[in-house]
This record gives sequence, structure tokens and C-alpha cells, in this order.
Amino acid sequence: MAENRFDVVGLGSAIVDVLTTEDDSFLAEHGMTKGAMVLIDEEAAHRLYDALGPAREVSGGSIGNTIAGIAGLGGTPAFIGKVRDDQLGEIYAHDIRSVGVHFEHTPATSGPPTARCLIVVTPDAERTLNTYLGIAGLLGPDDIDEAVVTSAQYVLVEGYLWDVDTAKAAIVKAMDLAHTAGNKTAFSLSDSFCVGRFREEFKTLVDERVDVLFANEAEITSLYEVDDFDAALAEVRGRCELACLTRGEKGSVLVTVDEVVEVPAVPTELVDTTGAGDLYAAGVLYGLTHGKDLQTAGRLGALGASEVISHLGPRPEADLKVLAADLLA
Amino acid sequence: MAENRFDVVGLGSAIVDVLTTEDDSFLAEHGMTKGAMVLIDEEAAHRLYDALGPAREVSGGSIGNTIAGIAGLGGTPAFIGKVRDDQLGEIYAHDIRSVGVHFEHTPATSGPPTARCLIVVTPDAERTLNTYLGIAGLLGPDDIDEAVVTSAQYVLVEGYLWDVDTAKAAIVKAMDLAHTAGNKTAFSLSDSFCVGRFREEFKTLVDERVDVLFANEAEITSLYEVDDFDAALAEVRGRCELACLTRGEKGSVLVTVDEVVEVPAVPTELVDTTGAGDLYAAGVLYGLTHGKDLQTAGRLGALGASEVISHLGPRPEADLKVLAADLLA
Repeated sequence: MAENRFDVVGLGSAIVDVLTTEDDSFLAEHGMTKGAMVLIDEEAAHRLYDALGPAREVSGGSIGNTIAGIAGLGGTPAFIGKVRDDQLGEIYAHDIRSVGVHFEHTPATSGPPTARCLIVVTPDAERTLNTYLGIAGLLGPDDIDEAVVTSAQYVLVEGYLWDVDTAKAAIVKAMDLAHTAGNKTAFSLSDSFCVGRFREEFKTLVDERVDVLFANEAEITSLYEVDDFDAALAEVRGRCELACLTRGEKGSVLVTVDEVVEVPAVPTELVDTTGAGDLYAAGVLYGLTHGKDLQTAGRLGALGASEVISHLGPRPEADLKVLAADLLA
Repeated sequence: MAENRFDVVGLGSAIVDVLTTEDDSFLAEHGMTKGAMVLIDEEAAHRLYDALGPAREVSGGSIGNTIAGIAGLGGTPAFIGKVRDDQLGEIYAHDIRSVGVHFEHTPATSGPPTARCLIVVTPDAERTLNTYLGIAGLLGPDDIDEAVVTSAQYVLVEGYLWDVDTAKAAIVKAMDLAHTAGNKTAFSLSDSFCVGRFREEFKTLVDERVDVLFANEAEITSLYEVDDFDAALAEVRGRCELACLTRGEKGSVLVTVDEVVEVPAVPTELVDTTGAGDLYAAGVLYGLTHGKDLQTAGRLGALGASEVISHLGPRPEADLKVLAADLLA
């Protein structure tokens, strides 16, 4: 394997989050399923936004969050995703570049606006996502920068991209480019509702193209339609090189053919779960691309998740390099 | 005095804040004076933004913060200010309307973009402001909605507006409309650098048109070019109906011809001073327009300031009605 320019290149939807806190009654009133991500059109986005209280805007998107976390740990990641030449696009590009992520994209000068996700955080710290994809819904094979993809140790893709019609070809292209170059692929199941929409395709993808899989308990049991975590673990074991299975406050399990490594969660005050899985993936991928063993990689993931759930917003606000100093040494 | 539709109508710059945290060395490197507000042009705004770390965007602007705080306490305020029909303009209008503020403005369809303020918060919680005024810099007499201004108990104006050439005529128009309607005026000195730029004009304004003045210690000593707080207090006393003078953790003093009312600060963990003076003014103005005595009005101000400095961002995030329940009873 040649020397790679990047640790990880992420392929995902470039989304600015619009974060608000509301009571559970708000979800009921607007027919929302707590914890789920649904796609909405521009009109619905405006209607919902009008109903929401004051918000804060921060760059988000599952893969973008992971990639920003890898940069925060001192890695050298890249991101591929689409924005428009509008103010939200400028915010997105600024935020991801300012933490040191390679993001070469030229904003589109026509088409729908930059994606936004209206996030309702309820008092139990759970987040419910309403995404207007905008220009991010046009991600396609032509957006795959071969030079970037083939010079990264890992290509990371999110399940959410399956909702983007033209993205599937882009994902396959990116994953195959990675493998041809002797590099690896990582995939996040995104959420259990997403798994429900694309179960068979995801199972095939895991069997055929995924080296490292990220999933939480609900996602992995849904994928294999089993009743409990242990059955899901047995099912996924050996289907990919490494499965990283998260269980909230119960910690996570990293599973290879040879090993089952249990990693405790890092306790913290839970404020907003947005980005928990994304920052877990960031820690693990940083570990894997920096010669750490599975236990250390898992602990880096647990630390990333712990930081991001302790405040409102999907990306780290503390210096991860400082927080993880012992693990990075 | 006829029944008024609004407690307070605020006239100010409609600004979206771009909040980041940086070390003091960042200020030095970019030639910034800590604690000051400077106006920058669009090119400088882009240059500075490129140098900043990841940010969060939240609606701000001194008067908008005060008006949002009055709404948060259960009042019925209105806001007058200019935005463009761009994404930041949509964010600004959403945030202020969603807390219950009357904001009738139709976004401009041409001209410069919505204003933004790049805010650098240093580890000592002090904020340094770099404002690109954009369309907010075009506020003029034609933007004054007479029906709104004449049906508010108070017209509130910020010193910062003096930097907007066309705004002075708007301020005089609004204040004179208020007085003709038998209503009152309130004025915030904004910051000591602003006082330095417009000292003589501000002194004349206080003498001739201001009923309630808001100033911190640095601003009021600068206005009257005196060495200490007591001298400033003696100087301002009687020049306006009420002067509300804030002193950070030392609390505030409310001064009329007949009374000097001292109010303690509400202790809290200091995170970001952005909006402290604005939320103090919100509490006082809510109190004055809801039949509270000066001590209670001052305590409402102290409570508002305490809430807003306990988190990053210029507007209340907790429910002020709950926090202030005892004072509002």
C-alpha cells in the first residue's frame, strides 16, 4: 500500500443543523417519530421552521461530524459533499475547513440551496431530525474525486446516502476505487429507520464491500432482524473485517473474526445525543489509522461520543487532543 | 396616555452573530482590541472568517437581544431593523418572531446581505466584536413604522446606530414620535469605544431626548470624562429620568433625581459576556413597563444578565419567566 495523503475520506450530505429544544408535545403535535431522521421538502422545511423556537445554526451531517472529529484528534481527513454558493454553504465549508479538513468542493452556482436539518432536542436529550437535502440530494458519481478517494486509508460512507438516488452509484464507485487502490471502506448504518428502508441493500453492501461497519444496537438488530444484541453480534461477525457496535451507556463492542473487544462508555452529563455515533466513529477511525489496538480505538470512540453528547450540537467543542492525551500518547 | 399595543419597540441593527472561541493571541495577531466593537467591510469579514475556527450562528444585535429578552419575560415588544432576503435574514426574522416579538419588516430584495458580527470569545469570557453591517447599515427614517413606534410605552435605541449615517435621522424621528405620543425613550450607550466616537452627540441626546439611559461603568465615565463611577453618577443624575448603571459583578445602580437604588448582581459561572448589558436592559424595561418598582426592575435586569453570561451566545436559552417567577409574581 502506497503512502496515503489522508487518513479517511468521508462521502456524505453537507448539512447545516438548525438546533432547537422543544417538549415532547411538539413532536406529537407535528407527527414526528422521536429519534428518527425523515426527509422533508423545502415547503415542509419552511413550515416546520416557522413552528420552531429560536435556533442555533451549526455545521452537521453525520459524515461531516465524523470527519471533523478525526481532524479534532489530529488526523488528516477529507470530505466530499455538495453545497450551494449561499450563506449556509459558506458556513458549512468554513466550519469543516477551519478544523483542518480537506474539502476541495466548488459550491454549485445553480440548483437547490445548501441542505439543512431541523433538529428538535427533547428534555431526555434525544434528537429528532428533519432534513431538507437541497443540493446535497444531487450527490453523484461525478462528485467523486478519484485522486482524493484513492489516497485515503479509508473511504467512509453513511447509510443516509441511500436516500439520495444518484448517490448509490457514487458510493459503489468510491468503495471500488478504494479497494482497487488497496485501501479500505467503512460504513455507518445511520439509523434504524434507515436500515428498515434499505435492509437488503445494506446486507449485501456489508457482505460485499464494507471492511469496517458502525452500528448501534437498534440498527444492527434491525439489519439482521434478530431479537437481541448477542444474536446480532453473532450474525455480523465475519461478514466484515471489523464491526463496531455501540450500546449507549453500556459502551461498545468491537468484533472481528478473532476477537470480541468490549469497551466501556465514558460517563458524562447527557445534554444532546446528536452526533454521538458520528464521534464514536471518529475516535475508532482515528485509532485504526494511527496504529492503535482495538481497545484503544474503541476508547477513543467512547471519548468522542462522550464529549459531543455533553453539549448541544453535533461536533466537538472541547479540544479532543487534550481530552484524549493519554490514549494518543 | 392611550393604551399601548407594545411594551417596548426597539430600533437597531439586525445582526446574526458568528460565535467562536479563540485564545488571546488570536486578538493580538489580528490587531483586535479586546471588548471593542469595530465595523468591518465585506472583504475584511471574509478574511477574518477564514481565519476563525468553527463557529455557531445565532441571532444577535444589541437591541434585538434586549427585545428578545423582554419577550422571554412575557412582555410584548416589537423590533425595527433591516434584513435581506437571504438565509441569514431568514434566520434573524425566524429567531426574533419565534420568541413572540412583533417584526413586520419585509426583507430587502436588493442591496448588501444581512448583517453578521464575527464574535471572538476569549478564555476570560470577554467578547470582541467585528461587525459587517451589510443591509443593516442602510437603516433610515423611512424604516420607522409610525404606527408601531407611537403605540409602544418605550422606544429603545442603541448607541451603535450612530455608526449608521442614515440612522441618526431615524432615531430622532422615532424618539420625537414617541414623545409626541406621550411615550418614553430609552437609550443604550452600547460600548465605551462608541461613546468615544460620539461623546458630544450622546451627551446632547441624553439631555434632550432620553428618558431612560443604560450604561456600564466604562461607558458612563467615558461619556462625562470623569475618573470614577461616583463622579459619573453625580454627573448623569437628573439629566434623564432614570439612569441604569451596570458594574459587572458589583451589580447595578438605578438613579433618578429622588432615588439611588443599588441592586446586587446575580452570581453565575461566567462563560461569555456577549449580551450581558442587553439582557440587563431587557429585565429593567420589562419591570418599568409592568408596574415594578426600581429595585425589582433592577433585579430582573440582573437576572437576565446572569442567564445570558452563563452560556455562549447573546440571547437567553433558559425560560426567563421561570427563572424570574418570584420577581414577576
